[in-house]
Amino acid sequence: MTQTIAERLEQLAIVLPQASAPAAKYANYAYTNGFIYVSGKGPEGSPKGKLGSDFTIEQGYQFARQAGIEVLAVLQSALGSLDRVKQVVKLQGFVHATPEFEKHHLVLNGCSDLMLDVFGGEKGAHARSVFGAASLRDGLPVIVDSIFEVA
Amino acid sequence: MTQTIAERLEQLAIVLPQASAPAAKYANYAYTNGFIYVSGKGPEGSPKGKLGSDFTIEQGYQFARQAGIEVLAVLQSALGSLDRVKQVVKLQGFVHATPEFEKHHLVLNGCSDLMLDVFGGEKGAHARSVFGAASLRDGLPVIVDSIFEVA
Amino acid sequence: MTQTIAERLEQLAIVLPQASAPAAKYANYAYTNGFIYVSGKGPEGSPKGKLGSDFTIEQGYQFARQAGIEVLAVLQSALGSLDRVKQVVKLQGFVHATPEFEKHHLVLNGCSDLMLDVFGGEKGAHARSVFGAASLRDGLPVIVDSIFEVA
Repeated sequence: MTQTIAERLEQLAIVLPQASAPAAKYANYAYTNGFIYVSGKGPEGSPKGKLGSDFTIEQGYQFARQAGIEVLAVLQSALGSLDRVKQVVKLQGFVHATPEFEKHHLVLNGCSDLMLDVFGGEKGAHARSVFGAASLRDGLPVIVDSIFEVA
Repeated sequence: MTQTIAERLEQLAIVLPQASAPAAKYANYAYTNGFIYVSGKGPEGSPKGKLGSDFTIEQGYQFARQAGIEVLAVLQSALGSLDRVKQVVKLQGFVHATPEFEKHHLVLNGCSDLMLDVFGGEKGAHARSVFGAASLRDGLPVIVDSIFEVA
Repeated sequence: MTQTIAERLEQLAIVLPQASAPAAKYANYAYTNGFIYVSGKGPEGSPKGKLGSDFTIEQGYQFARQAGIEVLAVLQSALGSLDRVKQVVKLQGFVHATPEFEKHHLVLNGCSDLMLDVFGGEKGAHARSVFGAASLRDGLPVIVDSIFEVA
């Protein structure tokens, strides 16, 4: 018997929050033609700061995971059930970082690992890119932009 | 009777310019499978500078709105009529900003509000993300990258 | 008779490498519903550094071209034949640059020209955007994020 995503979340001890409100005049997602584009989400409530000076890579990894949980909360609110996710298509990570920082990929792994844990190795496998942003909204350490295919 | 987008633009006193030429060796848009990907557009002719030092948030808001008008000009040239836009899917804003800047979302509202004004609350609602770029082409203060669904 | 892409690559003296492994926990691409999203690729093995201080625009152009060759290697591994590419849809370039740099578009032309050379003026025409990143994975000078339509 296949496990539902709700069961897997429970096993992972992940409790999804309510989807956070958009930070400004836009929607949390656009759902069109079988794809959901989720608006950029960060680890809401996190301390302000940059990778490379204020935070360690491990802290960044946890922030990226928290951002991913916010993304899942949006999907849950949009779809009713995460079982409707057919494929994690694309993650793009904006890492708030110093000009010398070089480990953006290890930070974004926090979000990638979450997707693989929750959706498994097939549905969870995704394309990805990441870069160092000079600054981010509210001084957030990480923002994740994402696209999902829906059944 | 439903208003046409051309009528709404007139009501908003927006006169679309000719679509600006791409800044280098690419096309203004790619139209495929019902979606238009519009190339990054900035407020052409704007002064150079950064949010957080050279410009106020209100100036940034106006630059983002001007970038949005350039995007609409591309759509007009691609589709013949903006009435063919079925949905604003995604906006991504690159804000040329200092390392300390935190109000990227208020800047990009200039473009989001334009889309909502022109296409209305349903077709105009969109997913969005924004970040602070260390530098931008020609020193532009804002560039907007966008995706639209077309009927 | 139409030339195959393999023949065109030979004519251009381009030898595709094996697709480089993803730098972290993600896939090289996601293929869904006729589109391939290719993960961010840089000129692997290139020296570290920034446009605007460490490298000239011409060097940046060559790095962007090399990043494009890495993208083609991923497509080759995913599709078996580049003849299956129907359209280059979108390129997004992250240019590792100083805060004063203004020629991001000329750097990314290295990748755009490659796509036009390889796929020709119709299939190769694409939407594009580019910005200056504060920092990039491993200090890479350029990363290219891309979407292709597949027949």
